[in-house]
Amino acid sequence: MSHPIVFPSAESQSSVSHIRVDQDRLWNALQELGELGAYRDEETGLHGVRRLALTDQDMEGRRLVMGWMQEAGLSLRVDQIGNVYARRAGAQDVLPPVMIGSHIDSVGTAGKFDGCLGVLGGLEVIRTLNDHGVITRRPIEVAIFTEEEGVRFGTDMLGSAVAAGRLGLREALETTDRDGVSVGAELEHHGFAGEVQVPITAPYAYLECHIEQGPILAADNTRIGVVRGVQAITWKELQLTGRAAHAGATPHSLRRNAGLAAALVTVRLNEMVESGEYGQMLATVGRQDTYPNLINIVPSNVLMTVDLRNPDAAAMERAEADLNTYLGDVERLTGVSITSRTTAKTPPVAFPVEMQDLVAKSATNLGFSYAEITSGAGHDAGEIAALCPAGMIFVPGLYDGISHNPREYSTPEACADGINVLLQAAVELAN
Amino acid sequence: MSHPIVFPSAESQSSVSHIRVDQDRLWNALQELGELGAYRDEETGLHGVRRLALTDQDMEGRRLVMGWMQEAGLSLRVDQIGNVYARRAGAQDVLPPVMIGSHIDSVGTAGKFDGCLGVLGGLEVIRTLNDHGVITRRPIEVAIFTEEEGVRFGTDMLGSAVAAGRLGLREALETTDRDGVSVGAELEHHGFAGEVQVPITAPYAYLECHIEQGPILAADNTRIGVVRGVQAITWKELQLTGRAAHAGATPHSLRRNAGLAAALVTVRLNEMVESGEYGQMLATVGRQDTYPNLINIVPSNVLMTVDLRNPDAAAMERAEADLNTYLGDVERLTGVSITSRTTAKTPPVAFPVEMQDLVAKSATNLGFSYAEITSGAGHDAGEIAALCPAGMIFVPGLYDGISHNPREYSTPEACADGINVLLQAAVELAN
Repeated sequence: MSHPIVFPSAESQSSVSHIRVDQDRLWNALQELGELGAYRDEETGLHGVRRLALTDQDMEGRRLVMGWMQEAGLSLRVDQIGNVYARRAGAQDVLPPVMIGSHIDSVGTAGKFDGCLGVLGGLEVIRTLNDHGVITRRPIEVAIFTEEEGVRFGTDMLGSAVAAGRLGLREALETTDRDGVSVGAELEHHGFAGEVQVPITAPYAYLECHIEQGPILAADNTRIGVVRGVQAITWKELQLTGRAAHAGATPHSLRRNAGLAAALVTVRLNEMVESGEYGQMLATVGRQDTYPNLINIVPSNVLMTVDLRNPDAAAMERAEADLNTYLGDVERLTGVSITSRTTAKTPPVAFPVEMQDLVAKSATNLGFSYAEITSGAGHDAGEIAALCPAGMIFVPGLYDGISHNPREYSTPEACADGINVLLQAAVELAN
Repeated sequence: MSHPIVFPSAESQSSVSHIRVDQDRLWNALQELGELGAYRDEETGLHGVRRLALTDQDMEGRRLVMGWMQEAGLSLRVDQIGNVYARRAGAQDVLPPVMIGSHIDSVGTAGKFDGCLGVLGGLEVIRTLNDHGVITRRPIEVAIFTEEEGVRFGTDMLGSAVAAGRLGLREALETTDRDGVSVGAELEHHGFAGEVQVPITAPYAYLECHIEQGPILAADNTRIGVVRGVQAITWKELQLTGRAAHAGATPHSLRRNAGLAAALVTVRLNEMVESGEYGQMLATVGRQDTYPNLINIVPSNVLMTVDLRNPDAAAMERAEADLNTYLGDVERLTGVSITSRTTAKTPPVAFPVEMQDLVAKSATNLGFSYAEITSGAGHDAGEIAALCPAGMIFVPGLYDGISHNPREYSTPEACADGINVLLQAAVELAN
C-alpha cells in the first residue's frame, strides 16, 4: 500500500470522545431516502424499496444524498464508473483522506438500511463534525459506490471493484442488464461518467458501517459487530438446453428436460451445504427462468443462477469443482447440455487486526458491547481493502437480521450506535 | 346414448370406396392456416405457430377456416362456449349428424398440424364429397372446438368438455387467463358467444384425425394409428410460499426456500415415473415462476404446474395421493407452505371397439398398414365420447413425433392417408 498507516497508541485521546451523532437526524435521513423507489410488496404487505443501480430511482436517491452532501459543505467528484466522492477538507489537506463509504443502490425487494446506513452514516459524521467545528488533520471523504448489489448488471461490488482495480473499467462499462443496456450507456445517460481516473488513488484508510444482515448480534443483545472479514462469493449463471416436447406423448426416456436438470442441480447444491463437507458454505439458486414455461410442454431451456458463499477459499474451490463435476453427471443423465459462466468471484477478505482493534476500542470507549463476526454478505469494504487498511462496523437487525426484504429493520438506537463508533474511529484515523 | 348406432356389416360396400381426397389441396390449407400466428422460434430457428385460444391470432385462423367452410356450402352455427359447427345437409337431414372435429388453437410454440389436420381434414372430406356430388344419408358436421390446448386459460379440452356437459358453462366462461381476462369476456369481445345451447344435442357418431405426437407409428413405418383411447390427464397448480432472505447471510437452517421446495417436487415426480410403480405414468413440470427471481435472494414464492398422464385410472389416483403426501413432507422439511389446486382432470377414455374396427377396416380397404395405439395427449374426441360413439385416426410424425414445437411435421402423404381413412369411415357412418 502506498501510504503506510500509523495507528494511534492506546493512550492517545480522540478529540471527539465527548461528541455524539444526532440520532433523529440520521434516522430521518434514512426514512427520507427510503421513500425513493418505494413499492408495495406483495409478500409482506409492506412498503419496500426498489432502487436498482443506475435506474431513475437510483438517480433520485443520488440527487437527494448529493444535495445533502453539498449543503454540508462537501466538494463532490465522480469517477469513471460513477462512484461519488464527497470531500471534507483536512488541516493537512494534501494527505490521503480517511474514506467512509457504502452504496445506495438496492435489490428489487429491499428495506431502507442495506448500504444506506453506511452512506448516510458517513454524512452524519460530517454533519456532526460541522456542528462542533471539528477540524481533522486528514481530509474525510464519503463515498457512494455504483451497483454494489449486482442485481441489475450481474456483478456485485461493481463500482468499488473498479475503483480498487480488481475489475477492469472497460469490462465493467460493457456489462449489460437483462435488456441489453450497458453500464456505460446508463452512466452517460444519467451524467455519471465522471472524470476521476480508476483505479483511484489509495485513501489512508477505509471504514464502513452496515447492518449485519444476519441473526447473530441480535440473538445476544450485542450492540456492535467488529467485522473480521468478508467471505468468498462466487456467482454463476447456468444455461441449460434440452428439447421441448409434448408432455402427454413423450416417454421420459426420450426427453431432454431442462427443468428436471435445473431441479437436480438445485437439490444437489442443498445437499452439498447440508453434508458439511464444504465448511460454512451457503448456496442459493435465486433466479430460474423456464422456457417455454407452459403447463404441457417439457421445458427446453432454463437459465438459473448459483450464489455460493464461503469464508474458506479452499472449500469454495472444492465446491466449485464438485459442482462442475455434477453438472457433467446431469448432462449425461438427462441429455440436457449445460454451460456455466462465472459472473462474479471475490476471494475471502480478512480486515487488518489493527482496524478490527480500532473498531473494538471505539465501541468499548462508548460503553457498547461488541462481538467479532464474519460478514456473510459482500461489501464495498472487501474491495477497497485492496487499496488501504479497511474495517467494518455491524449493527444488529431485527427478525433474524432479515435483509433484501422490506421487513429489514434496525432500530434508531442501533443505527446511531454504529455511527457513533464510526465517528470515533474515523476521527482517530484522521488525526 | 340417445341414438343407438347401427354399424354397417363387414360386407357392405361404401359408396365412396373409389374416391380419394386431394392431397395438395389439404396440404395447401394446412400451410396457409399455419401462416397465421407465425413467430420466429429462438430455440429451433424455425417459424412456429402461436395461436393461443381466443386471441386475435386464433380469430384470424377462425375467419380463414370459416370462410373456406362457407365457400364449401356449409351452414355455420356457434354454441355458447364458441365451438363452431359447419353442417353439410344429408338426404335425411333430420337424422343426427356424423361429426368430424378438432381444434385450431395452439400452444405457444406450436407447429402447423396439431388440431388443424383434424379440422382441415374434415373440410377436405366435405370438399371431396362436393367434387364428386356425393349425397350422404345423414348430415355431416365439421366442428372447431374452443381452447383445446388449455394453455391460455388453464383447462384443456375446454370447449368440447362444455359441449359434452362434463364442464359447466358458467365455470368455463368465468375461467381467466394470467392477465385476468375471462373466456366469457373474450367470446363476447370476438363475437363468438353463440346461441347453440350446451350441452349440445348428441351427434350420431364422432371422428377425429390427428397427428400421433409420439414416436410409435414412424418407428415401424406404420401409416395409420387406430386409437384405442385417451389416457387420463390431471393438471395441478402448486403455490409454494416461503420467505425471501439474503443469500449471503441466512444459514440454511433458517431458510424457507420456495425454490428448493419446487426442485424437490420436480425431482420426486421424475423418480415416481422411473420407479415404474405407477404404470405408464408421465409427469411434467412445464411452468415455474420464481419470485423475486434475483440472484442473491432466497426465493419466497414459486408457482409451478404439474401435468400427470396415465392410461390407468387407479394408478393415476395412487400417484396423486402419493404426490400430496410428498408435498406434506416437503412442507415439513423446508418450512415452505404448499397449496395444490387441480385445474384439469379427465378420466381415461376407451373408444368403442366398433369405432376402432371401423377405422381399421377403412385403413385395410385403402391398403394402409395400421397399429393400435393409446393416445398420450388429450383430444376433443375424449370429451365427445361421452355423447356418442367416437373414434380417432392417428398419422405418424417425423423426429420422434415431436409436437408442441415448430419441428412438428407430418408429410403430405401421411396427412392425406389419415384423411382418406376419415373420408371412408365418415361416409360409412353417414350412409
